[in-house]
Amino acid sequence: MLRTRLDLDRIHAARRVIDPVFLDTPLYPCEALGRRLGCAVSVKVETVNPVRSFKGRATELVTSLLGEQGRAAVVCASAGNLGQALAWSGRRRGLDVTVVASRRASVAKLDRVRALGAELELVDGDIETARERAADIARERGVRLLEDSLDVETCEGAATIGLELARARRGFDTVLIALGGGAMATGIGYALKSLAPGVEVICVQPAGAPAMTRSWHERRVVTTESTDTIADGVAGRHPIPEVLDDLLAVADDAVLVRESSIITGIRLLLEHADLVVEPSAALGVAAVLEDRDRFRGRHVVTVVCGGNVDPHAHERWVRG
Amino acid sequence: MLRTRLDLDRIHAARRVIDPVFLDTPLYPCEALGRRLGCAVSVKVETVNPVRSFKGRATELVTSLLGEQGRAAVVCASAGNLGQALAWSGRRRGLDVTVVASRRASVAKLDRVRALGAELELVDGDIETARERAADIARERGVRLLEDSLDVETCEGAATIGLELARARRGFDTVLIALGGGAMATGIGYALKSLAPGVEVICVQPAGAPAMTRSWHERRVVTTESTDTIADGVAGRHPIPEVLDDLLAVADDAVLVRESSIITGIRLLLEHADLVVEPSAALGVAAVLEDRDRFRGRHVVTVVCGGNVDPHAHERWVRG
Repeated sequence: MLRTRLDLDRIHAARRVIDPVFLDTPLYPCEALGRRLGCAVSVKVETVNPVRSFKGRATELVTSLLGEQGRAAVVCASAGNLGQALAWSGRRRGLDVTVVASRRASVAKLDRVRALGAELELVDGDIETARERAADIARERGVRLLEDSLDVETCEGAATIGLELARARRGFDTVLIALGGGAMATGIGYALKSLAPGVEVICVQPAGAPAMTRSWHERRVVTTESTDTIADGVAGRHPIPEVLDDLLAVADDAVLVRESSIITGIRLLLEHADLVVEPSAALGVAAVLEDRDRFRGRHVVTVVCGGNVDPHAHERWVRG
Repeated sequence: MLRTRLDLDRIHAARRVIDPVFLDTPLYPCEALGRRLGCAVSVKVETVNPVRSFKGRATELVTSLLGEQGRAAVVCASAGNLGQALAWSGRRRGLDVTVVASRRASVAKLDRVRALGAELELVDGDIETARERAADIARERGVRLLEDSLDVETCEGAATIGLELARARRGFDTVLIALGGGAMATGIGYALKSLAPGVEVICVQPAGAPAMTRSWHERRVVTTESTDTIADGVAGRHPIPEVLDDLLAVADDAVLVRESSIITGIRLLLEHADLVVEPSAALGVAAVLEDRDRFRGRHVVTVVCGGNVDPHAHERWVRG
C-alpha cells in the first residue's frame, strides 16, 4: 500500500469531471526518435488541447469542485501553464480567475492567460515571489488560493495521465516525467505504482533548478537561492514537504540534465516527431541523451507535457 | 438515403480492426486561430500517431482484410503518406509492402517509407505515372494493388474520422476537408451526411491541382495536364469516376485556394496551434483566409490530416 495523499478512487472520479478534450491523449511509438536515442521511445502527447499542456486536467477538477462549493473566484501563482489552464476552466464555469506570474515569465504563456480573460498580475522576482503574492491576494480578497502540487487536485489531475498509461499496456518499462513542484511526477507516479508497479518512474529536472531532485535524494527539503534554466515550467526553488513525501513513495529515481541536452531534446522532438514543445517537455529526451547506456534496449515513455513556447526562442533552439 | 459505395455498418466495423493509436484523435477549439480567422475554429488533429497522417486508419483496415484473405504482399502508388501507413500496417502483419512514388516526392516521406522496411520504387513523372507502375507491378507479381480512393477501404478508413466528428457534437456547423483523390472527403463526408446531415461539408483543393474540384462542379471527370502546388499529398490529375460520384453525393461545395494562402495556413497553424503540418493539412485554413465573409460567425472544423513535411521547406514557409 502506497502511503501518499493520493487515492485511486478519487483519480477515477476526476476523469468524470474533466472535459474530454484533455483526456485520452495520444500515446504512440516514435521509431525515428527511438533510433536516434538507442532505445524504444513512445510519446504521451499533452500539447494537442486548447491550453497546450496537461494542466487542464487539474484545473477542470479544481474548478468543478469550486463550482460545487459555490465559490466565485480563485487565484494561483503560475509560470504560465497552470494559469492558462485555470483561466480556461474558470471561464467555462463563470469563475473570476486571477493569475500571478513573474514579470520574466514566457511572453507566449502570459499572452495566452490574458486572452482567456483572466486577471494577470505580474511581480518582480520568480515563481516563489509569485506564490507569496498569490497567497496575499487570496487572504485580502477571501478567495480560494490554488497551490500547484500542494493542492492534491493538481496531483490528481495529472494522475489521470498515469491511469491512461497503465491502461494502455503498450509494453513500456520506464516512464520519464518532468519534475518541478511535483504535481505531475507524484500524480503519474502514484497511478503507475498502484496499477503497473513494474514500470520504473524516473523524474527529470534541469540541473539549473535542482531543488526537488536534491530533496528527493537527501530525503529532506533542500531549497536553492536561484534557478538558471530555460525550462520555465519547472523552475521552483522551495519544494513543498507534503509533495516530497509523496514523491519519495512513488518515484524510483530523480535525475538532473544540462541545458544543452534540453535544447537538443527540443530539436529532436521537432525533427523526429514534428512536435513543437516547451523546454519542460523535452526533459525526458534529455535524460536519455545523457545516459544512453542506462536506457539501451528499454522502452521508455516520455510525457510531452506542454507546448507553450515563445516562437522565436523555439526557432533559436532548433536551429542550434 | 445517400447513394454511395460506402456503408455505415462497414465503417463502424472498421473501427474494430484499426489500431487504437489512430483512432479518437484530438478535436478541440483553437481560439487564437479563430481570432485570426474571424470565426470559431476547431482542429481535428491527425498528425500525432506513428505515421503522422490519417492514412493509418485505411491501411489498418486494408492489411487486416489482406491477412484474412491469406495475401502476403501488397503494392500501392503514393505521394508518401499512404505508402508510409501501408508500410507500418503491413510490417505489423508480416506483409511484403511495395510503394511506388515519384522521384520528386517529399524526401521526408520517402525516407520514412524506407525506414519502415517497405520496398520503394521511384518513377520519373508524377503520382499518375506511379499509379500506372504500381498497377504493372501488381499484374507482374500477382499481388494485391491498393488504389487510394478507388478501393473503398481507403474511404472507409477516412470515414472513421467522420464518425468521431459526428459523435463529438461540439457545435460546429462546417467541416473543411482537403481534397485530392477523394478518399478523405468522401469518407468523412459520407459519415457526416449520414449522422449529422446539418453539417456543411466543404472540400478544399489547391488551384494548382484542381482536377477533382473542377470535376465536382462540372459533374463529370475533368483531367488536367499537369499540377503545380506544394501540397504534394493532393496533387492528382485523373479523378476516378466512382469517387467523383460519391463526392457529388456527400459534398456541399468544393473550392480552390492559392499557394500563398496554403503557406499562410501552414504558418498560422504553427503560430497559433503549435502544429507542424504538411501543405495539404493547411488547405482548410487557406479556404477561410480566402473567403472570410463566408465563414464569419460560423464554427468550422478543419481536419489537420498530415504532418509529414520536409523540415527545411517548412522552415522556409513559416519564415515567409
